[in-house]
Amino acid sequence: MSSHDIFIGETIGTAILILLGGGVCAAVTLKRSKARGAGWLAITFGWGFAVLTGAYISAPLSGAHLNPAVTLGLAIEGGTKWSDVPVYLGGQILGAMIGAVLVWLAYYGQFHAHLTDPEIVGETKGKSVEARENAAGPVLGVFSTGPEIRNMVQNLVTEIIATFVLVLAILTQGLNGDGKGLGVIGVLITALVVVGIGLSIGGPTGYAINPVRDLGPRIVHSLLPLPNKGGSDWSYAWIPVVGPLIGGAIAGGIYNIAFA
Amino acid sequence: MSSHDIFIGETIGTAILILLGGGVCAAVTLKRSKARGAGWLAITFGWGFAVLTGAYISAPLSGAHLNPAVTLGLAIEGGTKWSDVPVYLGGQILGAMIGAVLVWLAYYGQFHAHLTDPEIVGETKGKSVEARENAAGPVLGVFSTGPEIRNMVQNLVTEIIATFVLVLAILTQGLNGDGKGLGVIGVLITALVVVGIGLSIGGPTGYAINPVRDLGPRIVHSLLPLPNKGGSDWSYAWIPVVGPLIGGAIAGGIYNIAFA
Amino acid sequence: MSSHDIFIGETIGTAILILLGGGVCAAVTLKRSKARGAGWLAITFGWGFAVLTGAYISAPLSGAHLNPAVTLGLAIEGGTKWSDVPVYLGGQILGAMIGAVLVWLAYYGQFHAHLTDPEIVGETKGKSVEARENAAGPVLGVFSTGPEIRNMVQNLVTEIIATFVLVLAILTQGLNGDGKGLGVIGVLITALVVVGIGLSIGGPTGYAINPVRDLGPRIVHSLLPLPNKGGSDWSYAWIPVVGPLIGGAIAGGIYNIAFA
Amino acid sequence: MSSHDIFIGETIGTAILILLGGGVCAAVTLKRSKARGAGWLAITFGWGFAVLTGAYISAPLSGAHLNPAVTLGLAIEGGTKWSDVPVYLGGQILGAMIGAVLVWLAYYGQFHAHLTDPEIVGETKGKSVEARENAAGPVLGVFSTGPEIRNMVQNLVTEIIATFVLVLAILTQGLNGDGKGLGVIGVLITALVVVGIGLSIGGPTGYAINPVRDLGPRIVHSLLPLPNKGGSDWSYAWIPVVGPLIGGAIAGGIYNIAFA
Repeated sequence: MSSHDIFIGETIGTAILILLGGGVCAAVTLKRSKARGAGWLAITFGWGFAVLTGAYISAPLSGAHLNPAVTLGLAIEGGTKWSDVPVYLGGQILGAMIGAVLVWLAYYGQFHAHLTDPEIVGETKGKSVEARENAAGPVLGVFSTGPEIRNMVQNLVTEIIATFVLVLAILTQGLNGDGKGLGVIGVLITALVVVGIGLSIGGPTGYAINPVRDLGPRIVHSLLPLPNKGGSDWSYAWIPVVGPLIGGAIAGGIYNIAFA
Repeated sequence: MSSHDIFIGETIGTAILILLGGGVCAAVTLKRSKARGAGWLAITFGWGFAVLTGAYISAPLSGAHLNPAVTLGLAIEGGTKWSDVPVYLGGQILGAMIGAVLVWLAYYGQFHAHLTDPEIVGETKGKSVEARENAAGPVLGVFSTGPEIRNMVQNLVTEIIATFVLVLAILTQGLNGDGKGLGVIGVLITALVVVGIGLSIGGPTGYAINPVRDLGPRIVHSLLPLPNKGGSDWSYAWIPVVGPLIGGAIAGGIYNIAFA
Repeated sequence: MSSHDIFIGETIGTAILILLGGGVCAAVTLKRSKARGAGWLAITFGWGFAVLTGAYISAPLSGAHLNPAVTLGLAIEGGTKWSDVPVYLGGQILGAMIGAVLVWLAYYGQFHAHLTDPEIVGETKGKSVEARENAAGPVLGVFSTGPEIRNMVQNLVTEIIATFVLVLAILTQGLNGDGKGLGVIGVLITALVVVGIGLSIGGPTGYAINPVRDLGPRIVHSLLPLPNKGGSDWSYAWIPVVGPLIGGAIAGGIYNIAFA
Repeated sequence: MSSHDIFIGETIGTAILILLGGGVCAAVTLKRSKARGAGWLAITFGWGFAVLTGAYISAPLSGAHLNPAVTLGLAIEGGTKWSDVPVYLGGQILGAMIGAVLVWLAYYGQFHAHLTDPEIVGETKGKSVEARENAAGPVLGVFSTGPEIRNMVQNLVTEIIATFVLVLAILTQGLNGDGKGLGVIGVLITALVVVGIGLSIGGPTGYAINPVRDLGPRIVHSLLPLPNKGGSDWSYAWIPVVGPLIGGAIAGGIYNIAFA
């Protein structure tokens, strides 16, 4: 694959991943969405099929990493050249930011209805800060993850474990398939593995399992002109970057020891 | 493929698509259906498996477009001859209307129970117009889409984005598969992509992402002898026609630039 | 395939179909089941994966019809010899009855808890017949289907339409696959089509779409020593036998005209 | 396959199976999890995709049994050498214990919040034993299964029936696939069969269908320093060991009679 194809593939694929992934969060949590209240199963299938769609579209161009933790694991394993890693990362972070902007465009009216509805945010005068945070929380949640219990060590461990499972499953594709890159069945399996990780390990932190999935939209959240949007929770932002990278690296190492 | 096979395939496939897609809306929203209240996840899986069934059945005959936005994208890409486009469109709009009539036949009793139940529609005298619209809304929703927030530009943008994702995924099938038309795995992936689009971008407008999926049943709604059915919301009807066509055309163009 | 293999395959496959299909109804509706209240989506996925499991196991032996409407459609189409039809039917009805007995064994305690719980069935003295029917209804629903609105013509039409879609999808497998009987992917697609039919056309009658799926368990219901079980609703029993057979025959005819 | 690969594969695969399977129980039942209350459908899909992930990763090394009942069935059928059985069992029980520890690490904060929340467990003084059991029950349920109605014969029968279906489906993979071990499609089908068994036969006992899935985490539960955790219900522990082994043995026998 040429650097050009890798960059284009990762940009388009990650943009679609985040459009659909952020989209399902908007769909389920924002006011005046038809999917409001559809619940955790909808969130997890939505993210899984976001992976399916983004990976299916980008697989022929870039091999569909869409995730620096996957790129790192594959570089350690040897399937991806280290010299290609910066091209992958560049496309991924750009794509993640484009995807977050597309979510904002697709749910423009819902964001504004949610953030300006008096019942949710409190009237401009006389209602507490807490009421306004009730509206801002779900809106940030469309863009980035946040923990239910804020404990840095614990949150890091959960992200490491969840990403380890994801990257190890992706690394074994070469053994399960025909050894010639990511096949269509591999894309489908990976998507369902992501549904499974969400259902099973998503409870504590919201399963970023992908540095750009969290960082790219968080940057966009801090830049977008959303009324009453509140802060972008930058103090948490390093966890869903560092945790997945550690998890991906461990998967690459274990793979080389046990499977190669 | 002969014009005859294309026309028959698109008519049967689109009829089954709309029968199952409209059917799940009837199942979940109408009174005296066993599935009433099954929720948004049921709607989105129902539409996805409607695509699966209609496409699986029609793929050997017509290649299973079932959607003018798909036909347009494939014509721009070059996989479908422009001279075949009118045959595709003819089968699609006819099939969509047949499918909507089949929904009415399968849910005949439910439509009547819903539209004549005093609790839902209000007694004939003395209850407000609003009460009657409470019954008419879900019934129109079985046939056609409508926005949660009525904003023409916004609704158009959402339909463009959602259809762009769908058509781009279908266009990349040639690169993922064996290059010889729509394979069975391609049908399955497309169906799950449609579930994903519904979960993720369906919240604002109900994701028509297909001009005939909305227009065909809307025509049937305006013709059927349903009591208290209310209007067919023709002022909105151009959005789910024009939006998907723009989205499909953009997907065809981007594909030719980035993937070809 | 030998008659011996057909009979064994259909018996085992249909038994597993009904064990899992009736099982999910018991799981979702009976008192003291962990799945109680899991809803319509659970019912439809449960039946779909019941088809998956039963068909996957029996495909190598008998081709996995598991349904007289499928056998009829395939006989009309020519894929199944008319002389094999009685063997298929014999295995199917026997398997359906065995499956219903297995549901009773697996949920023995739940059936008794449900049918003897004073809150549900009413105290033995002084509570109305209606209260006792509240308990008997779900129990019969574990075995056989029943309509939400009892209208013979309407119920028949709904079963015909739903079964037509199922059998037409199965008939096109030969065109989609390798032409050598039911492949594994075909089993998976069929299972998801059944989920789709349940979600979309299951609302009015509970989608028997299979004569033995309804008749076999109804016979077992009438024979089992369940306390307070009530009647087996024999006046409705012909609909889910005749409707699916008509639907399967129409699918066979349309296939021969449009696809062959 | 070498004994080394079998042991490593079964250990890693079963650890991931139990991490994701126990994880979804923690996600859905523990306090302060984002997935709390997601329901039975989430549990069953979570366990199914746990099988998918664990089996996909371990298939190239060990053939992905991950379950002594599967190993027993395959040994009876002849596909697995009896001399390899102890290696399989060793890896499976070790993996199950590692997986349970990983669940505890990933949900550390949730376990503690759940077990020490005054509303759930009752205040330290003056609240009943029953209140404390309300908190301990779901926590044990993250590790091991327990019946809704405690009846040893009945619970054993349910586990036998459920495991019989699982192992028979796995045994027929050789006939459905290419005869060369567990293919990727076979892994996917097995995962969906497990979803189906959960939906359909999981209601009475919580479907262990795997001796180490229940025993390994139960041992870990008895050892972990969880506050107010209560007992590990050892009186029930033999059922989900013996039942699945009987079910797997019956499946092996029936397979040899009917399919071989």
